[in-house]
Amino acid sequence: MEDRSMASPATHAAAPLREMKWSPAEKAVARRAFDLALRRELEAVVREAKDRATKIQEPSELWELERWLAERRHEIDRKYDYRYSVLPLVLAALLNEGRLAEDDLHGLGQDKLDAVRRATLP
Amino acid sequence: MEDRSMASPATHAAAPLREMKWSPAEKAVARRAFDLALRRELEAVVREAKDRATKIQEPSELWELERWLAERRHEIDRKYDYRYSVLPLVLAALLNEGRLAEDDLHGLGQDKLDAVRRATLP
Repeated sequence: MEDRSMASPATHAAAPLREMKWSPAEKAVARRAFDLALRRELEAVVREAKDRATKIQEPSELWELERWLAERRHEIDRKYDYRYSVLPLVLAALLNEGRLAEDDLHGLGQDKLDAVRRATLP
Repeated sequence: MEDRSMASPATHAAAPLREMKWSPAEKAVARRAFDLALRRELEAVVREAKDRATKIQEPSELWELERWLAERRHEIDRKYDYRYSVLPLVLAALLNEGRLAEDDLHGLGQDKLDAVRRATLP
């Protein structure tokens, strides 16, 4: 069986995410962007929760609010995964959602920016 | 071993809850009181949920609100048990909490009122 990681050693094929090396400066940039997006997302959930609570008219809507909060919590737990092996995918998702701008990633190496771009929707 | 249910057949000992017979009129009174208390309790939860949401300042308080709603839901599910075999105990608990007044039980037979009173805190 062919070893695909050896297939084209001269074409500068993208390094697998797991093999990327993150410098301390890159880690600081990534952490700042990650925390910024998380804070923005949590603030948006706070605003929407207050709005939903204000509009409750029927008791059944209490349990809809409870379910909606649980869904937001699970979604946030799932999305904000800081392992370096998946971080470019996470950052790409946050760009796609508009939680981050390209400028927020300034300072990442080209290999990380390329990986983010590959995972960003056109 | 002595059969305690046979101990004093002439003293009008309280009938076990499970053996009480509920007339259609008594069932209607009980249902109305039960539904009234449940509606009052749910309205109180709606009011408090709105108040709690208004006061949220930190994202962590979102999950406190979620947990509080889940606790209220479980507590209400547990408390509002309409089986006739436990209904006098349920009505007694609702009197104790101030969700019902004695007048709300007007129309129940003396055996049910006695059972409610026995279960009501002094």
